[in-house]
Amino acid sequence: MNINDDIYFLKLAIELAKENVKNGGGPFGAVIVKDGQIIAKGTNRVTSHNDPTAHAEIVAIRQACEKLNDFQLTDCIIYSSCEPCPMCLGAIYWARPKKLVFAANKFDAANAGFDDSLIYDEIQLPYSDRHLETVNLRIDESLQPFELWMSESNKITY
Amino acid sequence: MNINDDIYFLKLAIELAKENVKNGGGPFGAVIVKDGQIIAKGTNRVTSHNDPTAHAEIVAIRQACEKLNDFQLTDCIIYSSCEPCPMCLGAIYWARPKKLVFAANKFDAANAGFDDSLIYDEIQLPYSDRHLETVNLRIDESLQPFELWMSESNKITY
Repeated sequence: MNINDDIYFLKLAIELAKENVKNGGGPFGAVIVKDGQIIAKGTNRVTSHNDPTAHAEIVAIRQACEKLNDFQLTDCIIYSSCEPCPMCLGAIYWARPKKLVFAANKFDAANAGFDDSLIYDEIQLPYSDRHLETVNLRIDESLQPFELWMSESNKITY
Repeated sequence: MNINDDIYFLKLAIELAKENVKNGGGPFGAVIVKDGQIIAKGTNRVTSHNDPTAHAEIVAIRQACEKLNDFQLTDCIIYSSCEPCPMCLGAIYWARPKKLVFAANKFDAANAGFDDSLIYDEIQLPYSDRHLETVNLRIDESLQPFELWMSESNKITY
């Protein structure tokens, strides 16, 4: 994959983002490529699907995994019109592609009125300093799910 | 909502997590409560649904939003058996509940073999220092989706 390929697929993600705005959605698009072939495209569907998790990258990741019949995106490249927010960046790490390419960054997103930068800031703060009331309530049962998990011999790790 | 209510719902999230391990899934559970009523329950379905985004909190948020017919979880409380990973924490910020309560933390998750801590670390690093090859490819078209978005008068903000 050379730089011209990267530019080609990134322009496509940007075109998807623009098309989505014209259709009443948010200004974000993503494309997932494997072996030079597009295997999934995503646009932001938060308001149209009443789903705050339906960002372009999440939509594309779910579609690509369905297509590959796998919960990993091994050897895939994710192209996004904008730097992924923490939710999408987290999803990308869990999906384990080989590369991420994006055009605009989180400051551009903030300038357009999106909370990406706020969430990036919050994630680094101690719980007590966050805008969202966050309580780590440590009860006796807290570790039981992990103990059970670690004692399982036939589990599928991910 | 007093501390006993919090403990009650948190124990339920933990029970869901344990039940999920017994059913072959990951050791995570989440419950979403509005006005003292449970409106959604989620468990980790990554491997069973081939969906790396199907963490307990994401599953519960999508279900709760569908139920409320809204892309926001106004006045809701999210109870999770474990501290949300960056993906889920991002989703929670986008859903805008009033409170988050969790039992185990990200270090407990790491001890059980989950990547939460790695992703928390990566998210704070400059692109060039991350394990995932990350490229901000700034091309002429990069800001066009945001320009189009900001010029739209009838958009639904989120």
